[in-house]
Amino acid sequence: MRVFNFSAGPAVLPEPVLEKAAAEMLDWHGTGMSVMEMSHRGKDFIGIAEKAEADLRTLLVIPPDYEVLFLQGGAIAENAIIPMNLLAGRKVADYVNTGEWSKKSIKEAKKYCAVNIAASSEDENFTYVPAQSSWKLSEDPAYVHVCTNETIGGVEYQWTPDTGRIPLVADMSSHILSRVIDVTKYGVIYGGAQKNVGPAGLTLVIVRRDLLDRALPITPSAFHWTEQAAADSMVNTPPTYAIYIAGLVFEWLLAQGGVAAIEQKNIAKAKLLYDYLDTTLFYTSPARKADRSRMNVRFHLRDETLDEAFLKGAKSAGMDQLKGHRAVGGMRWSST
Amino acid sequence: MRVFNFSAGPAVLPEPVLEKAAAEMLDWHGTGMSVMEMSHRGKDFIGIAEKAEADLRTLLVIPPDYEVLFLQGGAIAENAIIPMNLLAGRKVADYVNTGEWSKKSIKEAKKYCAVNIAASSEDENFTYVPAQSSWKLSEDPAYVHVCTNETIGGVEYQWTPDTGRIPLVADMSSHILSRVIDVTKYGVIYGGAQKNVGPAGLTLVIVRRDLLDRALPITPSAFHWTEQAAADSMVNTPPTYAIYIAGLVFEWLLAQGGVAAIEQKNIAKAKLLYDYLDTTLFYTSPARKADRSRMNVRFHLRDETLDEAFLKGAKSAGMDQLKGHRAVGGMRWSST
Repeated sequence: MRVFNFSAGPAVLPEPVLEKAAAEMLDWHGTGMSVMEMSHRGKDFIGIAEKAEADLRTLLVIPPDYEVLFLQGGAIAENAIIPMNLLAGRKVADYVNTGEWSKKSIKEAKKYCAVNIAASSEDENFTYVPAQSSWKLSEDPAYVHVCTNETIGGVEYQWTPDTGRIPLVADMSSHILSRVIDVTKYGVIYGGAQKNVGPAGLTLVIVRRDLLDRALPITPSAFHWTEQAAADSMVNTPPTYAIYIAGLVFEWLLAQGGVAAIEQKNIAKAKLLYDYLDTTLFYTSPARKADRSRMNVRFHLRDETLDEAFLKGAKSAGMDQLKGHRAVGGMRWSST
Repeated sequence: MRVFNFSAGPAVLPEPVLEKAAAEMLDWHGTGMSVMEMSHRGKDFIGIAEKAEADLRTLLVIPPDYEVLFLQGGAIAENAIIPMNLLAGRKVADYVNTGEWSKKSIKEAKKYCAVNIAASSEDENFTYVPAQSSWKLSEDPAYVHVCTNETIGGVEYQWTPDTGRIPLVADMSSHILSRVIDVTKYGVIYGGAQKNVGPAGLTLVIVRRDLLDRALPITPSAFHWTEQAAADSMVNTPPTYAIYIAGLVFEWLLAQGGVAAIEQKNIAKAKLLYDYLDTTLFYTSPARKADRSRMNVRFHLRDETLDEAFLKGAKSAGMDQLKGHRAVGGMRWSST
């Protein structure tokens, strides 16, 4: 029996995707091979990768002047790879600090440049998103970095920052494809695949083409966006099976009506849960209402001595992975 | 119908492994989840990763003073990650150049240090492995790097270099687990998983623990061996599904009698093919006999105008992926 799996990532995948993957495991479309066994340079796999990219472009309305890269390392690797690829000619990058994932990005960036914290919600324990009017940008930063959904604190940008001519770089790992976004407002969008896209081990990078001339000489070829864009993400062997599964997820999303339709479901699901949490006396949900995440609902039992009983009861009702992140405790419901 | 798939990587996997993966796709051991959907920090996945590491240690007889890391990026990423992790306090690294894969390693290393080419077989088009007596090591290199099997040229070390107190670093991507090795002779062994281990997207790094204090400050945390060793390869989300499949391959290898038994099969298979190539007038096999690879048999039709007909005939007989690498042409048989 399948459970309700509320893990924040790696996370639940659509059952039809898993069923198709199982059925095709030993023989993909009569090739006599698993997708796992195909040369990445053969026409079968290239077809799979091209269709995955085309479907992602449709889902997110990615304009032609943006490259889509399928890389490795997850967002934590990309946190270092971003400054490597964008710092040439500049010494400072600006970061907005909204929680644990922002802090990880900042830590990596400091290895390559000066970091200006343009805004932070640390003063209220990362329970809100600082309004753009409060941001203090530096004079000529290489870019401004935001994490648009913080899975641990449970806050999410419900608006799109406007950084003018300064490239806006967004870690969207934990909510990409969950809501409609305007790609043209961003210089770079990136994310690990393991929340909404597919298996862990695949990293999406969507980068505006005019930003491909800014890499530092120390950038490894496998993570050099210009080289990867020129090589269709095949400077190194790409994570072929993860790309295949992501492609099946994209097909499934399109069949559901695309991102706009999924967003409506996500709004409804989050509202149902937040409304319930707000109307009982048993729970608190610390994030500021306007900035609450639809993807990761953080809540606490007012009586924490009941945490264990709560988790046990949930599990016996078929609801798994509700325990909050060890950094903040309590509970966390991640959208399925 | 399954084909004979001679791809050099991603490559064929044991059918029982694929069958098990298909059967467990929607519900691993009664958890109600696919391995793809499990939190990497949950006890189920940690159990899978620990068993995979333990089985790999058994297969390769890895001593306790070596760390085993499950990372991302493949060997081409690791080519940059190795100097980042080993250069602190030194400015030169030595490389033996035996072909296309060595050249890729050298190209990346030059971003971080001076590279001394200790030996090269470029003079004879990379058809042999330079004897150690010909190597010219620099005075105090951070390490000596070798690629112990070159898939494109089809040459393989049939002996283990002895670099004394200088750490020996080996790219074994394309033949790890195909033959018995003495891990204690190496400082670092690394490889992409996609030839003999599992799906593309997983990188194995086996590193002697006393080498974990030599990383440059620019090393990204996701690729920092010391940090990854301390975090059981979970600084970033590991490629969980690829680790699971690798674990199934390790179990399968143990059931076959381990690496020593597999090596005997590999010797027999390669001998059969080389003996045939040597006794007909239709083919040439350019690698020097003593250095011929067991894993990648490179051969050419004497009459190259027949190449296309050969590949077509092979395919219709159920033998796929025999075309040689575009860098050298001809044919390539990779051991299955």
